[in-house]
Amino acid sequence: MLTGLKVAVIGGDARQVELIKKLCEWDATLYLVSLEHLEGEFPGAQKVKLEEVPAEELDAIILPVPGTDEEGYMETHFADESPRLTKEWLKQVKSSCKIFTGISKDYLTSLCNELQLPLIPLFDRNDVAIYNSIPTVEGTIMMAIQNTDFTIHNSNVIIVGFGRTGKSLARSFHALGANVRASARKQEDLARIFEMGIEPIHTDSLSDKVKDCDILINTVPAPVINVKVLQNLPQTALIIDLASKPGGTDFRYAKKRGINAILAPGLPGIVAPDTAGKILASVISQLLLEKRGEGSS
Amino acid sequence: MLTGLKVAVIGGDARQVELIKKLCEWDATLYLVSLEHLEGEFPGAQKVKLEEVPAEELDAIILPVPGTDEEGYMETHFADESPRLTKEWLKQVKSSCKIFTGISKDYLTSLCNELQLPLIPLFDRNDVAIYNSIPTVEGTIMMAIQNTDFTIHNSNVIIVGFGRTGKSLARSFHALGANVRASARKQEDLARIFEMGIEPIHTDSLSDKVKDCDILINTVPAPVINVKVLQNLPQTALIIDLASKPGGTDFRYAKKRGINAILAPGLPGIVAPDTAGKILASVISQLLLEKRGEGSS
Amino acid sequence: MLTGLKVAVIGGDARQVELIKKLCEWDATLYLVSLEHLEGEFPGAQKVKLEEVPAEELDAIILPVPGTDEEGYMETHFADESPRLTKEWLKQVKSSCKIFTGISKDYLTSLCNELQLPLIPLFDRNDVAIYNSIPTVEGTIMMAIQNTDFTIHNSNVIIVGFGRTGKSLARSFHALGANVRASARKQEDLARIFEMGIEPIHTDSLSDKVKDCDILINTVPAPVINVKVLQNLPQTALIIDLASKPGGTDFRYAKKRGINAILAPGLPGIVAPDTAGKILASVISQLLLEKRGEGSS
Amino acid sequence: MLTGLKVAVIGGDARQVELIKKLCEWDATLYLVSLEHLEGEFPGAQKVKLEEVPAEELDAIILPVPGTDEEGYMETHFADESPRLTKEWLKQVKSSCKIFTGISKDYLTSLCNELQLPLIPLFDRNDVAIYNSIPTVEGTIMMAIQNTDFTIHNSNVIIVGFGRTGKSLARSFHALGANVRASARKQEDLARIFEMGIEPIHTDSLSDKVKDCDILINTVPAPVINVKVLQNLPQTALIIDLASKPGGTDFRYAKKRGINAILAPGLPGIVAPDTAGKILASVISQLLLEKRGEGSS
Ligand SMILES: NC(=O)c1ccc[n+]([C@@H]2O[C@H](COP(=O)([O-])OP(=O)(O)OC[C@H]3O[C@@H](n4cnc5c(N)ncnc54)[C@H](OP(=O)(O)O)[C@@H]3O)[C@@H](O)[C@H]2O)c1
Ligand SMILES: NC(=O)c1ccc[n+]([C@@H]2O[C@H](COP(=O)([O-])OP(=O)(O)OC[C@H]3O[C@@H](n4cnc5c(N)ncnc54)[C@H](OP(=O)(O)O)[C@@H]3O)[C@@H](O)[C@H]2O)c1
Ligand SMILES: NC(=O)c1ccc[n+]([C@@H]2O[C@H](COP(=O)([O-])OP(=O)(O)OC[C@H]3O[C@@H](n4cnc5c(N)ncnc54)[C@H](OP(=O)(O)O)[C@@H]3O)[C@@H](O)[C@H]2O)c1
Ligand SMILES: NC(=O)c1ccc[n+]([C@@H]2O[C@H](COP(=O)([O-])OP(=O)(O)OC[C@H]3O[C@@H](n4cnc5c(N)ncnc54)[C@H](OP(=O)(O)O)[C@@H]3O)[C@@H](O)[C@H]2O)c1
Repeated sequence: MLTGLKVAVIGGDARQVELIKKLCEWDATLYLVSLEHLEGEFPGAQKVKLEEVPAEELDAIILPVPGTDEEGYMETHFADESPRLTKEWLKQVKSSCKIFTGISKDYLTSLCNELQLPLIPLFDRNDVAIYNSIPTVEGTIMMAIQNTDFTIHNSNVIIVGFGRTGKSLARSFHALGANVRASARKQEDLARIFEMGIEPIHTDSLSDKVKDCDILINTVPAPVINVKVLQNLPQTALIIDLASKPGGTDFRYAKKRGINAILAPGLPGIVAPDTAGKILASVISQLLLEKRGEGSS
Repeated sequence: MLTGLKVAVIGGDARQVELIKKLCEWDATLYLVSLEHLEGEFPGAQKVKLEEVPAEELDAIILPVPGTDEEGYMETHFADESPRLTKEWLKQVKSSCKIFTGISKDYLTSLCNELQLPLIPLFDRNDVAIYNSIPTVEGTIMMAIQNTDFTIHNSNVIIVGFGRTGKSLARSFHALGANVRASARKQEDLARIFEMGIEPIHTDSLSDKVKDCDILINTVPAPVINVKVLQNLPQTALIIDLASKPGGTDFRYAKKRGINAILAPGLPGIVAPDTAGKILASVISQLLLEKRGEGSS
Repeated sequence: MLTGLKVAVIGGDARQVELIKKLCEWDATLYLVSLEHLEGEFPGAQKVKLEEVPAEELDAIILPVPGTDEEGYMETHFADESPRLTKEWLKQVKSSCKIFTGISKDYLTSLCNELQLPLIPLFDRNDVAIYNSIPTVEGTIMMAIQNTDFTIHNSNVIIVGFGRTGKSLARSFHALGANVRASARKQEDLARIFEMGIEPIHTDSLSDKVKDCDILINTVPAPVINVKVLQNLPQTALIIDLASKPGGTDFRYAKKRGINAILAPGLPGIVAPDTAGKILASVISQLLLEKRGEGSS
Repeated sequence: MLTGLKVAVIGGDARQVELIKKLCEWDATLYLVSLEHLEGEFPGAQKVKLEEVPAEELDAIILPVPGTDEEGYMETHFADESPRLTKEWLKQVKSSCKIFTGISKDYLTSLCNELQLPLIPLFDRNDVAIYNSIPTVEGTIMMAIQNTDFTIHNSNVIIVGFGRTGKSLARSFHALGANVRASARKQEDLARIFEMGIEPIHTDSLSDKVKDCDILINTVPAPVINVKVLQNLPQTALIIDLASKPGGTDFRYAKKRGINAILAPGLPGIVAPDTAGKILASVISQLLLEKRGEGSS
C-alpha cells in the first residue's frame, strides 16, 4: 500500500486515468493538477491548481507521457489551459521527490539536473519499452490492414530493426501468417531471428532484399530507409515508420516515387490508452513501493 | 489457358478487378457489362451493354459477389446504373453456360432452376469459405483494435462457432496473445479446439462463461447471443457479430444494456478487395479449366 | 456419478489404469478380469476371473484398445494368460450392455453383430481420434529427433494426409520451426493448410515435391509413398509412417534404396499411456453417463 | 574462399565432420590430427600425426568442443589415442594463429594467455549460444517425452531462467501446447515473457509456484532448484536440468524425495551433431573469412 504517500499528477491524456485509479486503490494522497474536466470518482484525490499543491511535501510528481516542451509547458486533455513546470515551482520539492515522465527532452532534463531531482523517463526502461511494444504492434497491424488492399497473411513483410519493438513485431506478423523477414546488425540478433523461424537479413543489405516487399515496417531511429532502399522497393509497397520523429525514412524521396510512407508515432496512446495507462501505473506503483521499502528499512 | 472461352462479367466491386486481370492473362474473351468506369488495360476484354453481349455464345457469366436482389438488380461500383438479370435475357444462353455468384438468394436461384442453368454460388464452397476467412479475420482484428481501449493481447476473447471462419479466428486471436475460448457444439470440434491449445466451451453453456469476456466474436448464424448471454456479459465488452444478416445477436437487448455490439458484414471486400478478388479469380479459373478439360476429352 | 453401474474391464495395458481410476472415482462397481498383477488401490473394484463376473448384470464391458484377435484372444500387460472373449460367454450379457474397444476387427465385429450388442470402437470417433492425435504427434516428434542427426527446426518436413492426425502434425512441426509442407486431396483441406501458413501440396503430385525433403511423415492408410515418390526422395531422408498396418510406404523399395523408413504404430500408448488412458476414460464415462441419463428418463 | 589458409583440426566428435566438409568446400588446406578413423573423402585434407603438422605455418587450430582437460588431453571419437596439447608444441605457432574451442577450462585458457595466442571459446559467443539453443530445445523435448507418461501438451511446464536457452525453450514448449511459466530475475525479461503470451514468475518466488508443476526445466547455472523448491514440487514431477555441471538442482535431496531429476549435458552433440557441427562450421568460416579480409587489406 502507498498510504501516506503524496503524489501530484499534472496534465496528461487518457493514459493518466488508469494511473490515477491505481494510485487511489493503493491509498496514495493525490493532487490532480490541470485535470479539472476528468470524470469519475477518485477517492483520496483532489483537483487543485498547481500553486495549491503542497510542493514541499510531495513524494512524487507524475508528468504527462511526452514530458514538457522546451518552455516547460505540458499537454493536458482534461483542462482548458496547458500547465507549465517552472524552476521556481520545482525548487520547492524535496530532493527525494521522484519526477516521472514518459520521455524527457532538454528543458526537463536540465531542470532536474540543476535541481538534483531524481528524474525517471519511463520509456527509457527496457521493461516499459517491451510492455509498450504490445499496443505498438497492434497499432501497426491496424494500420497495415487499413492501408492495403491485400491481407497481411501471405504478404511479404520486412521488419527493420530487432530491438524491443522489432522483436514483438516480428513475432506477431509471423503469427498472422505473413512471410516475415527481420533485419538486425548484431550477429546475436540474427541468430535469434533465425531461431524464431523468421528469415534474418542484415540491415546493411536491406536494399538488396526489398524487391518483393509488400509492407516495410521500420523501428530504427536512423536514416536506414534511404534512397537506395526506396529505389528497390515496389511502388505499391506500404511503409509504416515507427521510429521516433523524424523516423528512419527519406519521406521526401518516397513521396517522389509515389510510395505510401506513413510516420506513425504514439500508437499505444492511440489504440490502447487503457493498456498503456496500466503499464505506466504498474511500473510507477512498483517504483513507489520500492522507495517506500527503502525508506522504512 | 482459357483461349476461346467467352465470359461475361456483369457489375460488381473492387474484387472483380483481380478476376478480370486473371481471366485476361489466361486469354479468355471477355465482355465487361456495367463496368464502364473501370480503369486499366484489359487485353481481350471489351466494355459493352448487356444487350450487346452475344449471350448464346457465352461459356460463363460472372455476377457480382452478392448475386442479384429479389428483382434481379445487381450492384456495380463501376457504372452509373444497376444492371438487371432478366429471364428474357438469360433464356438465350446455352445450357452449359456456368453462372458464377458469391451468394444466391431466391430470385437468382429459382431463375437458374427454371432455366436449368448450372448456378455456382462460390461462397457455399468450403475452400472459398476458408480462403475468405483469412481477410475476414483481419477485418475482425482491425475492428477489435479500433473499438476498444485495451489490447487484444491478454484480453479475454470468446469466439462463438467453430466452423470455417471460427477456426481461423481462434487460431489468429490465440497467436496474438489473447486468452481465447472457442465455442462449438460438436464433440470433435471441442477436441480440435483443445488440441489447438485453446479452451473449449459448449455453445449451449455460453451464458455461464461470458462473465469476464472482453471481446465476443460471433460466427453462428442463429440467435445464440441471446438475452441470457447478454445479461452475463460485462457492459464494457465489445461484440463483433460476423454472421450473415441479421447476425446472431439480440442487438435490441444489447443496446438496452449499453453494450457495444457491431454487425460487420462483408469484411473481405472491405479490408482486402485484392485478396478477396484473387480468391474468386483462382477458383473460377480453375473451374473453367476443369470444364475445358472435360469438354476436350 | 455412475453409482450402481456394473462394468467389467478385461485385460489391456497401462492405458487401462487411468480408466479404472476414473470409474472408481465415479463410484461404478468394477470387475477387473485378467488384471491380477495390476498394482494400486481401486475402491469398489474386485479382481476376478472371467467366469466369476456376473455377466448378465453388466452395463458395460471394456476390452483392451486393440480389441480381440481373430480368435477372440485379448492382450493383457497385467496377467500371465491372455483372456478370450467367446460367444458362449458374451451370450449371457443383456442387450443394452455396451462393449467398448479401441478398434474392432472381424471377429469382434461379427460377434457383436450376431448377438446384437452395441459395440463402440472408440477410435472410430472423431473426437477420440483428435485427442489421440496429440500423443501421436509427440511420439512422432520424439522419433524424428531420435532418428536424425539434424534438428527438426529448419528442416524440410512433408506431412502426407491432412485428416485428424495430419492436422495436428502440421500445426506442431510448423510451430517447432520446420519448413512444413502438408498434402491433401480435397480443395478445402488445401485451403485450410494455406490458412495455417503452411505450404499445401496435392497428394497426387507428391513425387514432384519430395526432392529436398528431410523428414516425410505419412498418415494416409493407402499406398501413397510408392516407388515413384521414393525414387525422388533423398536417400538421407527419414520416413515415419503412422498409418495403420501395413502403412502407406513401399518398405521393400525404401529398403532397397537405403532409405530409413519406420512403421510406427501405437504411439499414444507408448509415449503417453496416462494421457491416452485419460482420453478413453473421459469418453467412456461420458457415454456411460449419457446412457444413464437416457435410462433414468 | 579460404584458399591458402592452413588449418589443423585435432580430435573431436561427429560435429567435426560438418566443419571439415565446409572448410574443404571453401578450399582451406587441412591437417586432420587424431582423426584417422574418420570416413569420407575430404579433398585438400590430409590425416597426419600432431608432430607432422607444420605448426609454424598454421592460421588456425580447431580443438574438440570441450577443449582440453586439465592436463591438455583432448577427446576424439575417431582415433584410438587421445591427443595432447602441450606448451612445447603450441610454442611453435605464430602469434596470429587462432585457437578455436567450444568451451575453455583453466589449462587451455592459461596456456593461450601465456603464449599470447588468440583463444576463441565459441560457446561464449551469444550467436553460437542462441544457435545451439535450437538443438538443446529439441533434446529437452525428446527427454520430456521419453521420461513422462503424459503429453507435453496441456501439462504444466516451468522453465527456470530466461537467457539464450530459456527463451528458446519457452517459445517451443508454449508452441507445443504446454501451460508454460518462465522464470527470470530482470524486469525486462519478465516483460518479454509476458509479451510472448507466457506467464512470468520471478526466480526468487519459484518455491511458491511449483505446486502443480509437471515438468521443471532448469537453465540457471546456480543452485536455484533447492530444498525449498523441491519440497513444494509434486513427487511425480520430472526435472530436466540443462545448466552446466553440476547443474542447478539439489540432486541429493531430489533423490531423497523420490523425484526424477536428470542432469542433461551436451544435448546438441547428442541429438543433432550435424546441425551442431554446421553451427560451428559457419561461425568459424566466417571468423576466418573476416581475418582474411583484415590480412589482405
Ligand atoms: N510509433 C510508436 O508508437 C512507437 C512505439 C514504441 C517505440 N517507438 C519508437 O521506435 C523506435 C524503436 O524503439 P525500440 O524500443 O524498439 O528501440 P530499441 O530497442 O533501441 O531498438 C532499436 C533498433 O534499431 C537498431 N538501430 C539503432 N540505430 C541503428 C543504426 N544506426 N543502424 C542500424 N540499426 C540501428 C538497433 O540495433 P542495435 O541493437 O544493434 O543498436 C535496434 O535493433 C524508437 O525510435 C522508439 O521511440 C515508437
Ligand atoms: N462478416 C463477414 O465478413 C463474413 C465473412 C465470412 C463469413 N461470414 C458469415 O459468418 C457465418 C459463419 O461462416 P462460416 O463460413 O464459418 O460458416 P460455417 O462453417 O457453417 O460455421 C458456422 C458455425 O456455426 C455453428 N452453428 C450453426 N448453427 C448453429 C446453431 N443453431 N447453434 C449453434 N451453433 C450453430 C456451426 O456448428 P455446426 O458445425 O455444429 O453446425 C459452425 O460452428 C456465416 O453466416 C457467414 O455468412 C461473414
Ligand atoms: N501410429 C500411430 O500411433 C497412430 C495414431 C493415430 C492414428 N494412426 C493411424 O494413422 C492413420 C490416419 O489417422 P487419422 O485419424 O488422421 O485418419 P483420417 O482422419 O481418416 O485421415 C486420413 C487422411 O488420409 C487421406 N487418405 C485416405 N485415403 C487416401 C487415399 N487413397 N489417397 C489419398 N489420401 C487418402 C484422407 O484424405 P480424405 O479426407 O480426402 O479422405 C485424410 O487426409 C490411420 O491409419 C490411423 O489408424 C496411427
Ligand atoms: N545441457 C545442454 O545441452 C546445454 C546446452 C546449452 C547450454 N547449456 C547450459 O545451460 C545454461 C544456460 O545457458 P544459456 O546460454 O541460456 O545461458 P545464459 O544466456 O547466460 O542464461 C542463464 C540464465 O540464468 C540466469 N541466472 C544466472 N545466474 C543466476 C542466479 N544466480 N540466480 C538466478 N538466475 C540466474 C540468468 O539471469 P540473468 O540474465 O538475470 O543473469 C539467465 O536467465 C548454461 O549453464 C549452459 O552451459 C546446456
